[in-house]
Amino acid sequence: MSKLVIVGTVAFDAIETPFGKTDKILGGAATFIGLAASQFNVNAAVVSVVGGDFPQEYLDLLSDRDIDISGVEIIKEGKTFFWSGKYHNDMNTRDTLATELNVLADFNPAVPEAFKDANVVMLGNLHPLVQMSVLEQMKKKPKLVILDTMNFWMDCALEALKAVIKKVDVITINDEEARQLTGEYSLVVAARKIQKMGPQYVVIKKGEHGALLFHDENVFFAPALPLEEVFDPTGAGDTFAGGFAGFLAKTEDYSFENMKNAVIYGSTLASFCVEKFGTERMQTLQDKEIYRRLDQFKQLTQFEIVLENN
Amino acid sequence: MSKLVIVGTVAFDAIETPFGKTDKILGGAATFIGLAASQFNVNAAVVSVVGGDFPQEYLDLLSDRDIDISGVEIIKEGKTFFWSGKYHNDMNTRDTLATELNVLADFNPAVPEAFKDANVVMLGNLHPLVQMSVLEQMKKKPKLVILDTMNFWMDCALEALKAVIKKVDVITINDEEARQLTGEYSLVVAARKIQKMGPQYVVIKKGEHGALLFHDENVFFAPALPLEEVFDPTGAGDTFAGGFAGFLAKTEDYSFENMKNAVIYGSTLASFCVEKFGTERMQTLQDKEIYRRLDQFKQLTQFEIVLENN
Repeated sequence: MSKLVIVGTVAFDAIETPFGKTDKILGGAATFIGLAASQFNVNAAVVSVVGGDFPQEYLDLLSDRDIDISGVEIIKEGKTFFWSGKYHNDMNTRDTLATELNVLADFNPAVPEAFKDANVVMLGNLHPLVQMSVLEQMKKKPKLVILDTMNFWMDCALEALKAVIKKVDVITINDEEARQLTGEYSLVVAARKIQKMGPQYVVIKKGEHGALLFHDENVFFAPALPLEEVFDPTGAGDTFAGGFAGFLAKTEDYSFENMKNAVIYGSTLASFCVEKFGTERMQTLQDKEIYRRLDQFKQLTQFEIVLENN
Repeated sequence: MSKLVIVGTVAFDAIETPFGKTDKILGGAATFIGLAASQFNVNAAVVSVVGGDFPQEYLDLLSDRDIDISGVEIIKEGKTFFWSGKYHNDMNTRDTLATELNVLADFNPAVPEAFKDANVVMLGNLHPLVQMSVLEQMKKKPKLVILDTMNFWMDCALEALKAVIKKVDVITINDEEARQLTGEYSLVVAARKIQKMGPQYVVIKKGEHGALLFHDENVFFAPALPLEEVFDPTGAGDTFAGGFAGFLAKTEDYSFENMKNAVIYGSTLASFCVEKFGTERMQTLQDKEIYRRLDQFKQLTQFEIVLENN
């Protein structure tokens, strides 16, 4: 079975949206990525760190889905990373109310021995030096390395970020971040510049406006499924990345054509994630629900124009 | 040959974008709609009004494309409608610098006798009373009536607008306008409310983020083609509508399935429109360029997931 290493935060989130608010609930990039990837029949391991305050039931939730958590370090005397945010009425913008790094401040990732030959490595949003450390621990060059990052690292660790970008095959990044990284407004031009920085494949996430996949001169676009209601966008980007990585790890086909399917799977899983607070919806998600929604994606995007004259 | 009636402005535009600015050039909703629809083999007529200052060469430009302009009234002592605008750096927002209604203020549309039995009527953005007057002149109930409108009429002529919305089969409207018209943020919910107001089909235009087509419980989405550079967005929405209406008039198939294709054709034509100032690009557009770009649309959106379990 194909092996997938996921590095990222496992954390507490407290979320406020126009629909309600939560206390501290399960969150973190690696959590969402792991839950999404666990929908595929892959051998996934999460590499992360939590404090002594982190409930065993949350860890069980991952290991119950056959996610290896031997790489999740527990620092008994420490506190788990905590993020708190409040979404505006449009659900597209948010204010960060609190960021407490806690045990994340000194995070030294340790990839479990059995996963140092993984085919696919998913570097969730973290300090680029931490991401690089995971890559350096791999004993065999992975078939595919996927990097997620954010504007924060462009502001405060740009050189380290550029160094890790150089090493990866795929980068997932949102539209504003792609613009910031390249100084280009056009996403087509920005994606081309990013490809020159290292990754052959560039995924630009546009939130409710879908996602673009670029490779050489090829472009593929997947819309977000139009939903009646977005309840909580937290984790949607990570769920997208987890679906993308999980599908590719499962199929072991890293071609552009198959990445199109991975983008569709990622978008499909993300469309569930936003239906409830935090990881709630992902915890109950069934295969048949996924298949039904993939079919909706086909209905949404597929057409039958016969070109009269090529 | 299928007949198509187009009502809308034929006008002067003066445009400023980050790439340059124009003097008074050819513009107007009916102009863009007509040029787009003329790509299809349909018998189209434009119903509009211009002043004595309107150059014959602009009128020739329409009639050279076999567009009937007998319904374009020329008021010799009057001046042509003039709009001037300046786009911001993001090309998505603009300031209106001048709007001179001139002959449009007293526009009394007259549908040419030979077009009063047209299959398709395209009501371009105009005062809803003018749009209604065109509908009332039709001797035979058209197979399809398409309405385009904007927030301005919601602000100042809402009851008249609602009356014409009630009479049409398709409405094309942008996302913010759909929200304003219904008071709903979710476009899915907004589209459902608009369907209850009359039109069975609702097209929500999201500019660079594509367009959604709603009908009953069905949704179809067409992205905008990712372009390296948007030079001038003026007329893109009208070009979309013209391609949509022209394709449906040509094929005489007004089903949801065929409307998907119409949305793709509309998006394709709009992707050319924005490449140069005003109507410039549409004037030189060749069939083979359209076919090539339709193929790009297929590459951009079509995927091959085989569902294992329906």
